[in-house]
Amino acid sequence: MIQITLPDGSVRSFEKDVTPYEVALDISAGFARNVISAKFNDTVIETTTPITTDGSLTLYTFKDDEGKKAFWHSSAHVLAQALEELYPGVKLWVGPAVDNGFYYDVDLGEEGTISEKDFKSIETKMIEIARGKHDFKMRDVSKTEALSYYKGKNEYKVDLIDNLEDGTISFCDHATFTDLCRGGHIPNTGIIKAVKILSVAGAYYKGDENNKQLTRVYGISFPKQKELTEYLHLLEEAKKRDHRKLGKELELFTFSKKVGQGLPLWLPKGAALRERLENFLKAAQKKAGYEMVVTPHIGQKELYETSGHYAKYGADSFQPISTPSEGEEFLLKPMNCPHHCEIYNTKPFSYKELPKRYAEFGTVYRYEQSGELHGLTRVRGFTQDDAHIFCTPDQLDKEFKDVIDLVLYVFGSLGFENFTAQVSLRDPENPEKYIGSDENWEKAEQAILNAAKDKDLNYVVETGEAAFYGPKLDFMVKDALGRQWQLGTIQVDYNLPERFELSYKGSDNEMHRPVMIHRAPFGSMERFIAILLEHTGGNFPLWLMPEQVIILSISEKYEKYAEKVLISLENDEIRALTDNRNETVGKKIREAEMQKFPYMIIVGEQEEKDNTITVRQHGGEDLGTINVEDFKKIVKDRVSKSLKTFK
Amino acid sequence: MIQITLPDGSVRSFEKDVTPYEVALDISAGFARNVISAKFNDTVIETTTPITTDGSLTLYTFKDDEGKKAFWHSSAHVLAQALEELYPGVKLWVGPAVDNGFYYDVDLGEEGTISEKDFKSIETKMIEIARGKHDFKMRDVSKTEALSYYKGKNEYKVDLIDNLEDGTISFCDHATFTDLCRGGHIPNTGIIKAVKILSVAGAYYKGDENNKQLTRVYGISFPKQKELTEYLHLLEEAKKRDHRKLGKELELFTFSKKVGQGLPLWLPKGAALRERLENFLKAAQKKAGYEMVVTPHIGQKELYETSGHYAKYGADSFQPISTPSEGEEFLLKPMNCPHHCEIYNTKPFSYKELPKRYAEFGTVYRYEQSGELHGLTRVRGFTQDDAHIFCTPDQLDKEFKDVIDLVLYVFGSLGFENFTAQVSLRDPENPEKYIGSDENWEKAEQAILNAAKDKDLNYVVETGEAAFYGPKLDFMVKDALGRQWQLGTIQVDYNLPERFELSYKGSDNEMHRPVMIHRAPFGSMERFIAILLEHTGGNFPLWLMPEQVIILSISEKYEKYAEKVLISLENDEIRALTDNRNETVGKKIREAEMQKFPYMIIVGEQEEKDNTITVRQHGGEDLGTINVEDFKKIVKDRVSKSLKTFK
Repeated sequence: MIQITLPDGSVRSFEKDVTPYEVALDISAGFARNVISAKFNDTVIETTTPITTDGSLTLYTFKDDEGKKAFWHSSAHVLAQALEELYPGVKLWVGPAVDNGFYYDVDLGEEGTISEKDFKSIETKMIEIARGKHDFKMRDVSKTEALSYYKGKNEYKVDLIDNLEDGTISFCDHATFTDLCRGGHIPNTGIIKAVKILSVAGAYYKGDENNKQLTRVYGISFPKQKELTEYLHLLEEAKKRDHRKLGKELELFTFSKKVGQGLPLWLPKGAALRERLENFLKAAQKKAGYEMVVTPHIGQKELYETSGHYAKYGADSFQPISTPSEGEEFLLKPMNCPHHCEIYNTKPFSYKELPKRYAEFGTVYRYEQSGELHGLTRVRGFTQDDAHIFCTPDQLDKEFKDVIDLVLYVFGSLGFENFTAQVSLRDPENPEKYIGSDENWEKAEQAILNAAKDKDLNYVVETGEAAFYGPKLDFMVKDALGRQWQLGTIQVDYNLPERFELSYKGSDNEMHRPVMIHRAPFGSMERFIAILLEHTGGNFPLWLMPEQVIILSISEKYEKYAEKVLISLENDEIRALTDNRNETVGKKIREAEMQKFPYMIIVGEQEEKDNTITVRQHGGEDLGTINVEDFKKIVKDRVSKSLKTFK
Repeated sequence: MIQITLPDGSVRSFEKDVTPYEVALDISAGFARNVISAKFNDTVIETTTPITTDGSLTLYTFKDDEGKKAFWHSSAHVLAQALEELYPGVKLWVGPAVDNGFYYDVDLGEEGTISEKDFKSIETKMIEIARGKHDFKMRDVSKTEALSYYKGKNEYKVDLIDNLEDGTISFCDHATFTDLCRGGHIPNTGIIKAVKILSVAGAYYKGDENNKQLTRVYGISFPKQKELTEYLHLLEEAKKRDHRKLGKELELFTFSKKVGQGLPLWLPKGAALRERLENFLKAAQKKAGYEMVVTPHIGQKELYETSGHYAKYGADSFQPISTPSEGEEFLLKPMNCPHHCEIYNTKPFSYKELPKRYAEFGTVYRYEQSGELHGLTRVRGFTQDDAHIFCTPDQLDKEFKDVIDLVLYVFGSLGFENFTAQVSLRDPENPEKYIGSDENWEKAEQAILNAAKDKDLNYVVETGEAAFYGPKLDFMVKDALGRQWQLGTIQVDYNLPERFELSYKGSDNEMHRPVMIHRAPFGSMERFIAILLEHTGGNFPLWLMPEQVIILSISEKYEKYAEKVLISLENDEIRALTDNRNETVGKKIREAEMQKFPYMIIVGEQEEKDNTITVRQHGGEDLGTINVEDFKKIVKDRVSKSLKTFK
C-alpha cells in the first residue's frame, strides 16, 4: 500500500501502481470525468501513469492552469498530426502550450504555405482526429532509437535529440502519430471538442534570424463548443476595447516618434480625464490626512547611491546626466521615495506629529527596451499616484487599514468590483535575508494581516514573497472581460528610513526610526487609465466623463436654444457641449455615439416651443422628451450613485 | 558757434567751449542746480568739460541711472581719500560705482583691517571731506608722468598704468587727493550729503584666488539725508522679505544637498500655495478657451535638433541621457514648445478649428552654474505656466488682446498694480536677420502695438529688440519696495511652425503655416512665488492664503467649541485650522502672527457661552467679539474684493 496526500491535506491509501485517474475515481466519479492532468510531488505525470511510492498528488481539470496546459499541449499533438496529413512531407519542430492556446512550428518545404483560407480545413481535420478518442501513450526510448526514428526525415528533431541525454528521452503516440515529447497530456483526444486556428506567423528556427524561417500555426481548443464561442467573443471584445485603439478614437493620448517611444503625450481630453482622476484622489487623500508635496524629476546620483537604487538598477536605467561644468551627475528619478525622505528630513519630528503622509503625483522615468513597450501599460515615463507615510511602528496597524479603505473607495468609485489581494510575508526560515528587527517585522506582518481580515478582503498569503525591506499587500482586479491586472500596492519599508537616517523623538525622549509605507492605489495614471479604458470600453463612470452631455441642434435655427440649454446645464456643473454644425442630426448622433457621450440631447422646433429636450443615452436607449430640470436630476442621481463621498 | 541737440530733439546754438553746466543753465537755473553728470554723443564727460563741436548732449540728475553712477563713482573718490587719511600707507586699487552704491578695493598692509566698528569714523571723515565742496578736476597725464607718480608707492596702480596706452591716461584731483581715473564725476564733493558704509569683504586682486586678498569696502551715498534713511529702511524691509527667509519660516519650500542645488522641494504648505495659484490660472484659462495637455519631461535629441534648441544651447545645458541599449539619446526638456508642436501635429486642422490653445504647467530643466543660483529666482528646474496658441495670421490681433486681458487679470488678482510693458520690434533696416514674411511681421507688430494701445498699457517700444523668430511683449512689475521684476511674456513665433512643418487648411483650401504665440503670465511658478513673497512679505491676498484663519482655544476646555467653529467655517469653504495645544494664548498668538495667518479667532468661556468669537487680524488690528456668520461675511467680502471673476 502507498499513502497519497491530496492538496487539502487528506491522506488516502491505495495499492501500489494506482493511477491518478483511479485516485480521482476514489474521490468521485463526477470529478474523475473532468480530471485531465496530474502532478505527483513536483512532476507532471499522465493520468494513466502508475504511482509507486508515497507522495503528494494534485489532480487538474480544465479550470486549472495546469489542466489547460495539458489540454493545449495535447491539442498541439493533434494539430501536428493534422498538418502531417494535410501537408505531406511537413517537418515538425516544437509545439508548446502558451497562455491562451498552443502553436506548432513546422517546415512546410520550399513551396508550402498556410494562409487564413486553410484554417477551416485544419480545424476540420483536427476535430476528425479528436473524435477518434485516441489515447495519448508515453513510452521511453533510447537515444539511438529516437535518432533512427527521425534520421533522414526531420533534421530539427534530430538536432533536438542530439542535445538530450540518453535515458531521458520519451515519445508520445496517439492514433498513427508519434512525437518526441516529455509528457503531460490529457487522457485521450476525445476530450477536445472545439478547435480554432487563430493565426499563422513566420518564426525563425531557434529564434535566430540567420536561420531558416519556419511557419508557426497558432490555435486554441476547448472541452466544450460553448467555451470556444465565448472565448472568440471575448477576443473580439478585447480588440474593440484595446486602449490604444480607444485612446486614439477618443483623442486621449498620442505618441510621437520625435519625442520618443514609450513617452505618452496627453491630448486635451486625456489630460482632462487624468486631472479629474487626480482631483478625485486628491479630495479623498485630503480627508485622509495626506499632504501634497512637489519634487523635481531629477536628483543627484548621490541621492540614489544613498537609497541603494543606483547600485541595484543604475546599469539598466537611463544613464546619468552630466553638466557642462562643475562635474555634477544627475539621474532621472525612477521613483519618488528618496525625494520624500529628504522632505521628511527637513525638520525634526516628535512622535506626536506622526504620521506624516506626503503625497505626490510624481512622474518617474524608467528605461524599458523598445520591444517591451505597449501602449500605456508599459511605458518609459509615467506618473505614480504616490504617497509615503512615515509613522511609528505602533501606528502601522491603523495606517494600513486606512490605506485599504482608500484603495477600496477608489476601486468602488471606478467600477472595479472584482478584486483579490495578495499578502507577501517574509520567509521565517531565512530571517537574515531581511532588514529590520524581528519585532518590527512581526508588528508589520500582523498589521497587514489584521487589516486584510478586518476589511474583509479576499486575499491569499504568500510566505517568502516579501521584499527584503518589508512585507506588502498587492491588489489584483478582474476587468469586465475577466482579465486580471495588478493595480494598487501597499508596502512597508524598513530600509529607506535606515539609509536616509530618518528619525523622530519618541515618548521616551529617545530618537527612533520611523517606518515608511509606500502606497499607490492607481499604481500609475497611465496604466490605470489603460485598464479603465479596457474595463469600461471607454464608457467611464458618468462622474469621470470629460464631457457628460452633447447637445445636438437639428438645424442652425435652434443653435440659440441649444446654447440656452448648455448654460442651464453648466450652471449645475454638468459638463456639456453643443454641436451646432450644419450636418444632419443622424450624422451628429452617429459621431456622438462613437465618442461615447453618455447623453445626447436633441433640440429642434418642438423642443424649443415646449421648452423641453429629447434625450438619448449612449447605446441607444431613449429617455424621450423631458424638461431640463428633470434631466439634471437624472444625471445627478446617476453621478451620486457611482461616486460616493469618501468617509 | 556750435549746435547742441538735446534728447527731446530740440537744437540750441552756443559759443564753442560751452560746458554742459552752461547748457543746463540755458534751459533753467533750477534744472542746472540738479545736473550732476553729462554725456556728449556717446561719451561721458564732466559737467565742466568744454564742448568744441556740434553734437548731442544728455544731462543727468541723480534720478537718472547715469547720474547715480557719476554720484557713486565720485563718492568712491571721497571714500579713497578718507581711507588714505584714516589708514596711512593704504594702497588703492580700483573703486567703481555699482548698482546700489560703490566700493573701493584697498591693500591695508600686513596688519591693517577694517571692521564694522570702523564704519562710523569712515562715514564721518567722508562727510567732512564732502563738506569742503571740492571740485573734481580731470587732467590728462603722460604715461611716464603717471608711472612716476605711483612708482614705489602703489604697485597696483603701476600695473594698471602699464596696461594703458600713452595719450589715454588721466588723473582726477579733488582737494588734496589724486586718483588715476577715466572721468565721469559730479561737479564737486559738496553734493554728497549722506553716506553709509554698508559692508566690508575680502576680494582677490584681479579676482584670482592665487593673488593677494585685498579689502573691499562697500558704501552708498545720496544727495539728501532723507534718501539715505529711506534706502536703509528699504534694505531692512528687503531683508525681512527675502523669499529664502520667508520660504523657510512659512515652511513653503526647501533645498536638499543630496537632491541637488537649484532643485526646490515644495513642502506641503508651498505645494498647496502653488496648486491654488495653478487652479486660479486654470479656471481663467478654461474660460479663455485654453485646453490643458500633459507632456513628458524628456524628449529625444532629435526633437531639439528639429526645434534648433540643441544646436543653440546643447553644449551649455544638461548633457544628453543615453540608454543602456538601443543607442537612443534623450534631453531634459528646457522648454515645452517642441512637445506642444508635436501635439498640434497629431491631426490635421482646418482654419475653422483654430486657434488651438494648449496649456501646461510644464516643468523644465536648464543648467545654471552653481554661482548663479539664488533661492527660487534662479533655479535649475522650474515649472512654467506655459501655453502655446496656434492661430492664423488674421487671428493674432484678437489673440494678443485676449492674452493681455489674462495677464492683467493675473496681476490685478495678486496685487501687482504697478507695471510697465516693453514691445520689442524688429530692426527694419536688417530684414534679413528675421524669419517669416514681411507681411506677417507687419501684421504681428501691428497686432502687438494695437493690443498695447487698446489695453491702455504703459509701454515702451524697443526697435531691433525682437527675437529672430518674432516680435514680443514683456511685462515688468514693480514690487512694494519699488524693485523691478520681469514677469510675464508674450512672444510671436514664425520659426517653430516652420521647423515642425505645422499646417492648417485655409478657407482657400490650400495648406498654410499657423503662427504660434508663446505666453506665460507668471513666467515660472518658482520665480513668481519668490516675487510674490517679497512683494507681499508673505501676506498673500486672502484668497490665496493656504490657511486663512487659525482658531486658538484659550484652554483645552474650549477645544470642542473651537472645532465647532472650524466646521462652520469649512462648510463655507473658509480654510481654517485649530490650535488646541496646551499653551498660553499669548504664545499661540505670537506664533500665528509669525506664520502670517490673516485672521486669528480666540475662543474661551465667554465666546462659548454667547456663541461668538473674538477676532484679531494679522498685524494686530482687532475686530472685537462678533458672531461667526458676521465674520464669514467679512472674509468673503475681502476675498471677492481681491479675486474678481475672469470675464
